[in-house]
Amino acid sequence: MSQFWSEFVHGLEPYVPGEQPAAVAGLVKLNTNENPYGPSPRALAAMRAALGDDLRLYPDPESSRLRAAIGEYYGVPLQQVFVGNGSDEVLAHVFNGLLRQREAVLFPAITYSFYPVYCGLYGIASRQIPLDDGLRVRVDDYRVPNGGIIIANPNAPTGCLLPLPDIARLAEQHPASVVVIDEAYIDFGGESAVALVRRYPNLLVVQTLSKSRSLAGLRVGFAVGQEPLIEALNRVKNSFNSYPLDRVAQAGAEAALADRDHFEHNRRLVMQRRQELVGGLVEQGFSVLPSAANFVLATHPRRQARDIYLALRQRNVIVRHFALPAIDNYLRISVGTEAQQQALFDALRQTLS
Amino acid sequence: MSQFWSEFVHGLEPYVPGEQPAAVAGLVKLNTNENPYGPSPRALAAMRAALGDDLRLYPDPESSRLRAAIGEYYGVPLQQVFVGNGSDEVLAHVFNGLLRQREAVLFPAITYSFYPVYCGLYGIASRQIPLDDGLRVRVDDYRVPNGGIIIANPNAPTGCLLPLPDIARLAEQHPASVVVIDEAYIDFGGESAVALVRRYPNLLVVQTLSKSRSLAGLRVGFAVGQEPLIEALNRVKNSFNSYPLDRVAQAGAEAALADRDHFEHNRRLVMQRRQELVGGLVEQGFSVLPSAANFVLATHPRRQARDIYLALRQRNVIVRHFALPAIDNYLRISVGTEAQQQALFDALRQTLS
Repeated sequence: MSQFWSEFVHGLEPYVPGEQPAAVAGLVKLNTNENPYGPSPRALAAMRAALGDDLRLYPDPESSRLRAAIGEYYGVPLQQVFVGNGSDEVLAHVFNGLLRQREAVLFPAITYSFYPVYCGLYGIASRQIPLDDGLRVRVDDYRVPNGGIIIANPNAPTGCLLPLPDIARLAEQHPASVVVIDEAYIDFGGESAVALVRRYPNLLVVQTLSKSRSLAGLRVGFAVGQEPLIEALNRVKNSFNSYPLDRVAQAGAEAALADRDHFEHNRRLVMQRRQELVGGLVEQGFSVLPSAANFVLATHPRRQARDIYLALRQRNVIVRHFALPAIDNYLRISVGTEAQQQALFDALRQTLS
Repeated sequence: MSQFWSEFVHGLEPYVPGEQPAAVAGLVKLNTNENPYGPSPRALAAMRAALGDDLRLYPDPESSRLRAAIGEYYGVPLQQVFVGNGSDEVLAHVFNGLLRQREAVLFPAITYSFYPVYCGLYGIASRQIPLDDGLRVRVDDYRVPNGGIIIANPNAPTGCLLPLPDIARLAEQHPASVVVIDEAYIDFGGESAVALVRRYPNLLVVQTLSKSRSLAGLRVGFAVGQEPLIEALNRVKNSFNSYPLDRVAQAGAEAALADRDHFEHNRRLVMQRRQELVGGLVEQGFSVLPSAANFVLATHPRRQARDIYLALRQRNVIVRHFALPAIDNYLRISVGTEAQQQALFDALRQTLS
């Protein structure tokens, strides 16, 4: 508290990201949904090439080459692409520029916990729509007056996927609202709603290179939508920071998008590891929600999730536990390498025995 | 215009950065105050070392090592240091978290043109205080009711420096207001007000690695102030984007701060080039304001600045012209290499003859 703060700062409840512990030998980090496999070697080479005297010069404020690469990947013109410093920044501009309306914005009661934080930052009213008994989003539950809707698909931390026809129905049912689909994890088992952007002027799809492109450390996210939506984001961005993406990030992201072989190989590996993760957890008595993401949400019939979380932590395995009523008996576990998952299974066996 | 925009977006007037033309052979780019000399080789090496599989992991959300390096450089604890994605992002959070008050924020009528843009973004009232006849800031002109004060020092685009005792007086005269000193160019001839932070709980100093550290392409800026001010910035930042600085930027910036030899050598070279720039311009009849920055503001007694600007453009030399009443007969010219400045002098000679 300080007399010097702007008034709203006193009421802010900032987002708390998953713990980023200092590198400890033997630490098994399955708490922030990072990709267990590294980024494209072509992306690394492009970044190396960007390291030189030219760093004295500002980057392209429009990130035109990167936006063209994203457009090419999805078959849309670059005018329909917006990029930002991680999808968190993109989402912040989305809440400010598109979802700050007279009516409340709607999102699932269990979802990415940054959404209510953005609402706090921008003074946006929100209404949280409960999940169904299977912890799934039901599109028809959103048929209430609203100033916009945002759905993570697959949802986090449940991993549950909404099929594309449901997204289309949502966009159709709310023609006067912006419908935002946050697809941070879509490449691990879903189909992107970018395919629907042409049909729905109110649909905006947000993605990130942090997960399926293994570039969480580089901070690149993007949004795809029709031009009026993108223009709102550009206006906000250009009133906030002209150059959100540095030269290295622009070069690396562009090359990552172009390396489709690495991308396909990597995401297939992750999906295979996810099957093994689910199999190993079920074997030890867990119930696991069907996941289309690079993490699973799991609950054990006999042991409290929080106790398991703490016991794993002592054995140098970090997973995530959310102290939220509907899911406080669940653990969210990121997909790891074979070795990491073996270490998890071993630690669980000791914990549960 | 779109029905989907948040209401305030319709009224936004975004910042327009200096042109970033595609690399053209022979282009002499003296329009965005970039450093004519490259960054520290140690910074480049540190960035190369950050390019690997670890990019799959999120960066340190607190940028602790970088903040410690900045703290060490200035002799302050890291708790008094905030970092962001370029000083533009830092300034955005400063306007939102500290300068959004009931009374208007004050800044010079001629200054960094992003300040009024931030006010537009956050709905902050502002009052612009005229410069004196010599285009200088007079601290005593700010003795009016206010909700904060921000001064670029040296000011842009004038290059004029306010001495440290004036900054101290300003902080003293306004104990209930946050006084922000934006020192993007301070290393080219001024003394940082960081030395005053200990004495004034209302003083916040903002800097960037874009200019004197030759890292405009990397996007790293920072603020130094007492902890309550830094806490406001952290609250806003953590409600906006947990990870504003990527792994490469954190590593490069930390190493750049540590390479004092390169820094000293580089800034001395720039100051020497500035002398030569002023000398060459005066020789061709320009009046040049005394500059403590890596650019100069110059006016010619017989030729309109805009005409000179256009004629230079045709000769592949880009400088900056601002269509603002008080300075529309001035050109802002960035310090360049010897070769760039020679090209400028040649083009001017042809233009003015």
